[in-house]
Amino acid sequence: MKQILKYSAAALALLCLAVPSVTADEGMWLFNRPPTKQIKARYGFDITPQWLEHVQKSSVRLSSGGSGSLVSPNGLVMTNHHVGSDMIEKLSTAERDLLKSGFYAKTNADELKCPDLEIVILWEIIDVTDRVKNAATAEMSSSDANTARRKMMTTIEQESKEQTAMRSDVVTLWQGGRYHQYRYKSYTDVRLVMAPEKGIAFFGGDADNFEYPRYDLDMCFFRIYENDAPLKNEHYLKWSRNGCADGDLVFVAGHPGSTQRLNTVDHIKFMRDVQYPLSMRTIWRREVQLATFMGRSEENRRIAEGDFFSMQNTRKNFSGRFAGLQDPAFLARKVAAETKLRAAVDANPEWKAKWGDGWSQIANAKKLHGEMLVRFAAMGGSGLSLGGQLITKARDLVRNADEALKPNADRLREYRETARSSFELGLFSPAPIHPEFEIENLTAGLQNMGELLGCEDPVYLKALDGKSPRARAEELVLGTKLIDVAERKRLYEGGKAAIDASRDPMILFIKSLDAESRASRKRYEDEVDAQEREGYAKVAAANFEVNGEDQYPDATFTLRLSYGQVKGYVENGKDIPPFTNFAGLFKRSEEREGKYPFEIPAKWQAAREKLNPNTPFNFVSTNDIIGGNSGSPVIDKQGEVVGLIFDGNISSLVGNFGYEDVTSRAVSVDSRSMIEAMRKVYDAGTLADEITGSSRKPIEAGSR
Amino acid sequence: MKQILKYSAAALALLCLAVPSVTADEGMWLFNRPPTKQIKARYGFDITPQWLEHVQKSSVRLSSGGSGSLVSPNGLVMTNHHVGSDMIEKLSTAERDLLKSGFYAKTNADELKCPDLEIVILWEIIDVTDRVKNAATAEMSSSDANTARRKMMTTIEQESKEQTAMRSDVVTLWQGGRYHQYRYKSYTDVRLVMAPEKGIAFFGGDADNFEYPRYDLDMCFFRIYENDAPLKNEHYLKWSRNGCADGDLVFVAGHPGSTQRLNTVDHIKFMRDVQYPLSMRTIWRREVQLATFMGRSEENRRIAEGDFFSMQNTRKNFSGRFAGLQDPAFLARKVAAETKLRAAVDANPEWKAKWGDGWSQIANAKKLHGEMLVRFAAMGGSGLSLGGQLITKARDLVRNADEALKPNADRLREYRETARSSFELGLFSPAPIHPEFEIENLTAGLQNMGELLGCEDPVYLKALDGKSPRARAEELVLGTKLIDVAERKRLYEGGKAAIDASRDPMILFIKSLDAESRASRKRYEDEVDAQEREGYAKVAAANFEVNGEDQYPDATFTLRLSYGQVKGYVENGKDIPPFTNFAGLFKRSEEREGKYPFEIPAKWQAAREKLNPNTPFNFVSTNDIIGGNSGSPVIDKQGEVVGLIFDGNISSLVGNFGYEDVTSRAVSVDSRSMIEAMRKVYDAGTLADEITGSSRKPIEAGSR
Repeated sequence: MKQILKYSAAALALLCLAVPSVTADEGMWLFNRPPTKQIKARYGFDITPQWLEHVQKSSVRLSSGGSGSLVSPNGLVMTNHHVGSDMIEKLSTAERDLLKSGFYAKTNADELKCPDLEIVILWEIIDVTDRVKNAATAEMSSSDANTARRKMMTTIEQESKEQTAMRSDVVTLWQGGRYHQYRYKSYTDVRLVMAPEKGIAFFGGDADNFEYPRYDLDMCFFRIYENDAPLKNEHYLKWSRNGCADGDLVFVAGHPGSTQRLNTVDHIKFMRDVQYPLSMRTIWRREVQLATFMGRSEENRRIAEGDFFSMQNTRKNFSGRFAGLQDPAFLARKVAAETKLRAAVDANPEWKAKWGDGWSQIANAKKLHGEMLVRFAAMGGSGLSLGGQLITKARDLVRNADEALKPNADRLREYRETARSSFELGLFSPAPIHPEFEIENLTAGLQNMGELLGCEDPVYLKALDGKSPRARAEELVLGTKLIDVAERKRLYEGGKAAIDASRDPMILFIKSLDAESRASRKRYEDEVDAQEREGYAKVAAANFEVNGEDQYPDATFTLRLSYGQVKGYVENGKDIPPFTNFAGLFKRSEEREGKYPFEIPAKWQAAREKLNPNTPFNFVSTNDIIGGNSGSPVIDKQGEVVGLIFDGNISSLVGNFGYEDVTSRAVSVDSRSMIEAMRKVYDAGTLADEITGSSRKPIEAGSR
Repeated sequence: MKQILKYSAAALALLCLAVPSVTADEGMWLFNRPPTKQIKARYGFDITPQWLEHVQKSSVRLSSGGSGSLVSPNGLVMTNHHVGSDMIEKLSTAERDLLKSGFYAKTNADELKCPDLEIVILWEIIDVTDRVKNAATAEMSSSDANTARRKMMTTIEQESKEQTAMRSDVVTLWQGGRYHQYRYKSYTDVRLVMAPEKGIAFFGGDADNFEYPRYDLDMCFFRIYENDAPLKNEHYLKWSRNGCADGDLVFVAGHPGSTQRLNTVDHIKFMRDVQYPLSMRTIWRREVQLATFMGRSEENRRIAEGDFFSMQNTRKNFSGRFAGLQDPAFLARKVAAETKLRAAVDANPEWKAKWGDGWSQIANAKKLHGEMLVRFAAMGGSGLSLGGQLITKARDLVRNADEALKPNADRLREYRETARSSFELGLFSPAPIHPEFEIENLTAGLQNMGELLGCEDPVYLKALDGKSPRARAEELVLGTKLIDVAERKRLYEGGKAAIDASRDPMILFIKSLDAESRASRKRYEDEVDAQEREGYAKVAAANFEVNGEDQYPDATFTLRLSYGQVKGYVENGKDIPPFTNFAGLFKRSEEREGKYPFEIPAKWQAAREKLNPNTPFNFVSTNDIIGGNSGSPVIDKQGEVVGLIFDGNISSLVGNFGYEDVTSRAVSVDSRSMIEAMRKVYDAGTLADEITGSSRKPIEAGSR
């Protein structure tokens, strides 16, 4: 279930450039620069502007970090269970564990309102490259130029918001090579309609994650509401009557989170030797900490399970990428490509003068980055994310009070006016906050600070205030009132005066560390980010010049189109066929003695005789996807749903740094298994009818 | 189950000094310097030389890293299940999983011979301080003096071995303040007699580990053989007829592994800020790696489970210690004690001249240690322990071939003649080696090397030989013949010529890295260890002078005596009574819904009605113990067995750095529960009869 977007902020900070030449089914293409020619050449199929617009406006992004699609005219959204699980967990209580039991609302009235889920639909894309780039002049220092560009991005967003009332984000593409403005329709009244048991959604658990063959019903359904009624949406994806077959051309429309495919060699070495070792340490630490916390009681298990699975997923994902980086053969290919591009630049005096120093500029930036990385990580990154939700809420209150006094364009980006509604949705979320888990997480964060900085560091001593990490965490969590939504509202509405007057220990804690944290962030932005963007802008320009404009940028958690075909592969000399089926599910469980995480849920045991064992369950295709694509629809040439992306196989993990289609595969839930399970396992015929209402005749599971 | 000795080599390298003043039930006392006065003063009981000799010669140490005791005149040894589990795992196969099913040999003929377990009994102690110290002269440099002392230790051991034919170890006490020679009887034909299911031995798993109340039957029984017949031993512990009661004086005779109670403040800060963060990273990494490997199949689970539990145990142990170090109040006490001692030294000009620079010498040594620590860890420490058993076997073959050519006193300590029989036992062990697990472990070791050194380090590049870590590990593991005992024997017996001629890839791999590894080790010994020993010898001398001779040294995995009493405690305002019982076991399982690791094994379910629910199961006492004490007998004033140490509670973990008896407790299996379970659950009446043969009348479980 890799495709959800829950990586560390540090990892997300690293975005880069597209590959110079595109082969095979490679690419996460922009909807305003689609791979029309490539698809025509490889598959003889024409994607029309109408087809693209329809797919674009049927695709959604969820604030929990994944993708989805509208699959009925009544606001019904399909996504992965693991994209929705954060909400499912928040909607659960000790008495009603929806992850364990699953959920189905037979009527609209039974649907459960999510505490803090935002769904957005991309409506319009405008190229604003010139406005952003021209905000910086040649005379400016790198850091001043960077600031000027950031301000212009906020200004453009603000203007757009005032003109259209739509959410507007300026997206940095090609790491500063281009800037596009994305306008979104945004919805915050979202309700849970249906989710199967976690036991079938994540059958095989961490053991089978990123593996194939696979047997997961990793789906769930939400409904968007507008004015307290189901959304009436013009665009939605129809359901394929027959599903897909081996060799079929299929498309994925979704939001890949981040890739680093044309990072310079020095940048890659920095990631390999400096950044990833630190990230891995953090991941192992957190995975073990969560496992230990969960072991203490059944209630702890319920509370922390979502974070735990997410961390396991991140670990497996990063391990795969890291293994790729540690392979000398992999780096050799990167070196060869870079050498070729640089030789072309150096051979042309004009290019050399304009772009020749881009690579060394990036290398210098990463060197500086390396010097500040550990301290930055110790303090929870740019957002002082030291552990737990209360810390981030206190941080948002304290920072917002300061930022709100500044002109919009001068603020830290996350406190700009155009992001306010999403910001408030999170800050005032009524989702439960568990004090014991908060204490655990903050203790771990404080201990981590001591481990990374050394226990005599002034910042650490200030953070502890003379106590042990656990004693300090207990004091803060048990002493704060921020667990109460009303108190957060009061402090938010009271602005700077209320924050200044507050004696809340968590607020005081954040205030004591905020200057240091902001200074680190500023140093990073001025000294690293600014240099890096300038360098990459040069590399990007050289790359367009040498390799042509027909390229896709690295992933940025914005809507992209990928194409590919349903196709098996060979692994260790063994043929892996593209489809699995329900019979395989029961067989796999038996092989593993039915033990966790290979237990078949009771409803499936009961329905076993009724189910068609030949129903296609999961399948693989060559589509180029990555984390963030979770929940993306897989559609056929007609634009009809044939599957639901939920994972990539183990070979796909190095896709972060480069695509290959020999053994890398995207893994999807087959549309036919979803309908079969709704009708025969979950007694959810009404939902199946709503989804397939557009079909010409009823679905027959397993038939083709 | 903390008390087994399975810490990292780095952790074990840190041994130090005893506390200056002893209060409460503190102390891990030498058998040749027993706490006679303290026990008399606190409990009015006289321990006689005869009592001490009998207890000493009834106590054993197991090469798997724990303690045990003789409990019958026929060589029967009692220890913990978790001390024996490494053997139990080695005696298991995919078809016969003894960890899962448990084991009981009804007759001697059914007993299972362990592939590589050595049991030793301490027979004699001789103070050799003067000989060792006088080997170094005042003119020598620190490193030359250190070498001279090491050579003298080997010479003394060799002489003793030639005179007595007994195994002889010179033990460094007070980190160089004293040197004692220990003579042992050694046995290598050891057979498994009885082990319960892991499910009851380690009931509650990692979740309940280091916690109390507790419900574990953490016992197992081996038998020592001599000339293919059960050992006829004069000394053994009789079984108490009635067990112990709240408030009883009890003793523990066992082998605490290591403590760092009088490390200097600078040394403690080094551990806190440099060493522990690196150790914790290694532990988290390994725990996650093992969990992932185990998840892949039932067979993997069986193969790796022992290592996994051991790593969880180490993690919980180190986390507890680390939390203590990160507590400012803890360090403040250490600073106060050191300030007082140094003031006393500085106030006396003669003392100041002799010992005054001891502290700064240690601080300098640790500074140098810090500079070499990461590289040392990356290369698997002084033993090139990069991952898996084959690597260490290849290392032993390569190094032994070189060392055997040198005079005995000049060799690396582990290849000295007196250690040869233990060395051969390990090298030629027929215990199974699993190639898949070897590949996994070596891959992880190579990746770790890259993470710590950076992937362009010459040593890393040499180790990989142009391949990825996994490809290289596969090449080495699948290419070597060392998995075959006969091949190891051939290379061992062929000596240097055979090693030089070998094309075995694992041998060549070790040869390519050995020079670098030996150089690091030499640098550590000459620059760090030598300085540190000199410094600690001064601090120890000052300490004896200022605080008197009546002290115990830090733990060194040699036999010690601790005293204390059976006693509950108060935690978070709640009374924790000293005893649990069988009824509590069933209750605890129900609370946790009978889920792993809280499942009651089938035999216990079946025997539930027969068992006396009031049988005392586990109990706590104030004895001062630490890792390595696992399996130690708990005895009463008569020297009779009342329990079996298997853990300490969470408060006891900081015991590594200092003892307190307010909430710190040792945790034992009650002798009565062992007999009750043998008779009613395991149909092992013969074994119970052998053990209790010395009792005056039959044991009645639960009665007092």
